[in-house]
Amino acid sequence: MKIVCLGSGNVATHLVVAFKKAGMDILQVWSPDISHARELAVLVGAAFTDNLEEVNKTADLYLIAVKDDAIGQVSEGLIGVDGLVVHTSGATDINVLSQLDNYGVFYPLQTFSKYKPVDLSATPLCLEANSGSSYAFLERLTKAIAAPAYRVDSAQRKTLHVAAVFAGNFSNHLYHLANSILEKDKLPFDLLRPLILQTALKVQDDLPLGVQTGPALRDDQLTMQNHLELLKGTPDLQALYETLSNSIKKTYL
Amino acid sequence: MKIVCLGSGNVATHLVVAFKKAGMDILQVWSPDISHARELAVLVGAAFTDNLEEVNKTADLYLIAVKDDAIGQVSEGLIGVDGLVVHTSGATDINVLSQLDNYGVFYPLQTFSKYKPVDLSATPLCLEANSGSSYAFLERLTKAIAAPAYRVDSAQRKTLHVAAVFAGNFSNHLYHLANSILEKDKLPFDLLRPLILQTALKVQDDLPLGVQTGPALRDDQLTMQNHLELLKGTPDLQALYETLSNSIKKTYL
Repeated sequence: MKIVCLGSGNVATHLVVAFKKAGMDILQVWSPDISHARELAVLVGAAFTDNLEEVNKTADLYLIAVKDDAIGQVSEGLIGVDGLVVHTSGATDINVLSQLDNYGVFYPLQTFSKYKPVDLSATPLCLEANSGSSYAFLERLTKAIAAPAYRVDSAQRKTLHVAAVFAGNFSNHLYHLANSILEKDKLPFDLLRPLILQTALKVQDDLPLGVQTGPALRDDQLTMQNHLELLKGTPDLQALYETLSNSIKKTYL
Repeated sequence: MKIVCLGSGNVATHLVVAFKKAGMDILQVWSPDISHARELAVLVGAAFTDNLEEVNKTADLYLIAVKDDAIGQVSEGLIGVDGLVVHTSGATDINVLSQLDNYGVFYPLQTFSKYKPVDLSATPLCLEANSGSSYAFLERLTKAIAAPAYRVDSAQRKTLHVAAVFAGNFSNHLYHLANSILEKDKLPFDLLRPLILQTALKVQDDLPLGVQTGPALRDDQLTMQNHLELLKGTPDLQALYETLSNSIKKTYL
């Protein structure tokens, strides 16, 4: 299996390193920034370039892991290749690649940081392809890196991407808002870390609907009034507290 | 160390089981519901009662782990005891116990489910007491169960409790809202579980401010417009999406 990687960010890095570990041959890394291309290429023993015209045309797989709005442009540099071309975006339709012969989507539903290892064997890979044989190829690829595969079409993937914003991005922002509340009383974030981890662990087996706790669930008016009073110096937090508490109350009416 | 536990819910159960494991003697469990009192008492080899007047007066520690609005009433049954009386509530002032001689607060900042084990050695215990010797007693107690202790006064504890609602209760509700989005497209919650866990793991070493990702952080207008369009059938979710996205944008301005 010969792979060319287009892009050098977090998703590109985590996937390409996993492919390399699974014994695949990373031929080349392309990035518009040559130093980024070099950095990833060195990591996996690949060639590198910042010129789309120099991209190796003999690969079995072209992995496009660039910003969403650059996928179309990068894919134009791959017109005519025999290999399978996939993008890795949750928010982008498969049709952005329709000028190619063999194309698909290889979307890892996970949050990646450059220096934090991720267990890809626990990362759902959402697959879509323009043909049965291309789909089968992507399925074999997920097996090689021991990751669970899900067939997700472009419409479903958009839904999934919104849901992931709620479950991931927005949760992290709530952690930050909680920390901003603590900081005013000079309390350390360490106090909340075990709660945050346990809250995430609880929904690994159960559904969140069944493990909800807190004053809004109990409709504990006195506690909620006290909390709103305490937040009166920060109207944005107060409004968010009310909105989320009302949303919980509505859910369990 | 002889302990009487007043209450038989999740907090009572997890703490009393940890105390028992640490070699302490659970004398008695009181609960207004005798079958609940018996259930916990059997677990830790204690006597049990549903009558406050029958509470054993010879204990070193009285742990009040009942609903917030019942703490005052339960503590009246303990007037005159020599032992240290503590409540376990994040939202309740220490003064609710001020008619007693020795009193304090022993607040574990964690989310407890009845049948899910919790690592108490990773659970912050927020301590407050009416005297230095009572505080020292509580500190020894946390050492015995290998839990980290934090000195947190009643005003700080109220702040902490609000922050915990954001980080815990509200995050879990976001997980639920994410799942409700998935369900409309018949997508399984399993797709989000690894993302949720990794999002919580990322802030165990870093602060959430530094690891935020997503369209609002990048001010990616096109993606946010697409997401809002997709949520148009659920105005509550649409409003929440806008509120949280704006909050993220404001944070990183």
